[in-house]
Amino acid sequence: MRLVGPSGTRWKEDHLATEEPLEIRLKAGGSTRTLAVTMRTPGADFELAAGFLRSENVIAGPGDVRRIIYCTDADVDAAQQYNVVSVELSARELPDPRRLERHSFTSSACGVCGKAGLESLELAGCSALPPGPEVTAAVLYGLPAKLREAQGLFESTGGLHAAGLFSADGRLVCLREDVGRHNAVDKVVGWALLDGRLPLADHILLVSGRASFEILQKALVAGIPIVCAVSAPSSLAASVAREFGMTLVGFLREGRFNVYAGQERLPVGEERIRA
Amino acid sequence: MRLVGPSGTRWKEDHLATEEPLEIRLKAGGSTRTLAVTMRTPGADFELAAGFLRSENVIAGPGDVRRIIYCTDADVDAAQQYNVVSVELSARELPDPRRLERHSFTSSACGVCGKAGLESLELAGCSALPPGPEVTAAVLYGLPAKLREAQGLFESTGGLHAAGLFSADGRLVCLREDVGRHNAVDKVVGWALLDGRLPLADHILLVSGRASFEILQKALVAGIPIVCAVSAPSSLAASVAREFGMTLVGFLREGRFNVYAGQERLPVGEERIRA
Repeated sequence: MRLVGPSGTRWKEDHLATEEPLEIRLKAGGSTRTLAVTMRTPGADFELAAGFLRSENVIAGPGDVRRIIYCTDADVDAAQQYNVVSVELSARELPDPRRLERHSFTSSACGVCGKAGLESLELAGCSALPPGPEVTAAVLYGLPAKLREAQGLFESTGGLHAAGLFSADGRLVCLREDVGRHNAVDKVVGWALLDGRLPLADHILLVSGRASFEILQKALVAGIPIVCAVSAPSSLAASVAREFGMTLVGFLREGRFNVYAGQERLPVGEERIRA
Repeated sequence: MRLVGPSGTRWKEDHLATEEPLEIRLKAGGSTRTLAVTMRTPGADFELAAGFLRSENVIAGPGDVRRIIYCTDADVDAAQQYNVVSVELSARELPDPRRLERHSFTSSACGVCGKAGLESLELAGCSALPPGPEVTAAVLYGLPAKLREAQGLFESTGGLHAAGLFSADGRLVCLREDVGRHNAVDKVVGWALLDGRLPLADHILLVSGRASFEILQKALVAGIPIVCAVSAPSSLAASVAREFGMTLVGFLREGRFNVYAGQERLPVGEERIRA
């Protein structure tokens, strides 16, 4: 990489955030079907696959998964085998082809394609999340620094998004990184699914950038009641949060934040803030 | 929106970046097929549809499009009609269903799903871009400020990505914004396609955030030889640029930038930088 600036140019070795395709295959009863291919940062691939399938409502819990393996097909180039993950379902058959068609058609790396917004969420059987937990402003203030401290790669590449799962008292439970923010969230959800922790009631999700529809959708399916973003939310993200009883916090940085929905989980009075 | 900070809390009206689904339908010879649904910021929807179809190689130029219209179906809710765009092709038939299947399966808002990376680009018939133009460092330094100045929405919402198309001497030719960076690029490409300007040789594309595989892929299909990002590129973005003779510049901000590929278009000597 050549650096160009006011004092001239120089060469420097650079570390770029790795981006490679991951093909997610479903297997059941001797049948195989490619469900999606996503561009992702290698690492936590099984969690990514599991979280993606949960977000897409193909699986509900760890009992639906027999095992997850990298590709061992002889006809797949060795270097590519780690870019193909097969999820073997416990079911005897693949889901209804039309349902999968719907998925393969509608779903993708970005997690929202083909969905008509809020309606599809309701169709997918999501209902409003239950009340709680309550979280103090001080806990929220502290989250971005904890996320940054735990991020290994971001500092060196500047190119990775992070998703951090926190307990209601601000303890970091799981951190995952990816070139795609949606993948980072899928990795967190997949980790929780494979660890038998879903739904993630009483947890907080913090994403390093913006909060879009898909981030809220994934959090909703995982049962995470509080979603925070370091940057701005979109209008549809706020709609989803309001519709499904979630708390949405944006611009969480430098001891400030904005609340767009679900403020009942943030009983922030003057006295607390000034304490 | 409630603002929470060190001096207490207060309420304020907020402007969020609008995110709504857009369904892109193809029509030809009396047949209709939904190709994709993307979450986008309303505006420039016809350009978005045209650019998406070009990026996906469904159309090659304006001659392939008879007209683009919003949905007029009586069974579609009036409010939703502006979330459905129909592209009527000049061809008598829709493309081969299997080819569309491939598209509907592989394509999406994010533009990369289902593709196995570089191989698919080569399969899609892309070849390396021709040499030129040469661009000075001073021109590149000036682009981010021009993009910001032209951005109407970003300042108020903090939630929109921008894609700016510039001439080789740094004149802003087209600016489009969207919650999705890929959509902003599709809007620029679609604008150029409908205006008969493809391929965009001798142009520079600047994106407000990071440069991923999909951004390079879209620029390549549109023939844009120089891609700049305000933030970091991914490893695959750099690979695409090297493979297809494109120039990739990252971290273009505050009078500096890094060059990851195609430095021959940037004859940056000490004397020029210090001039």
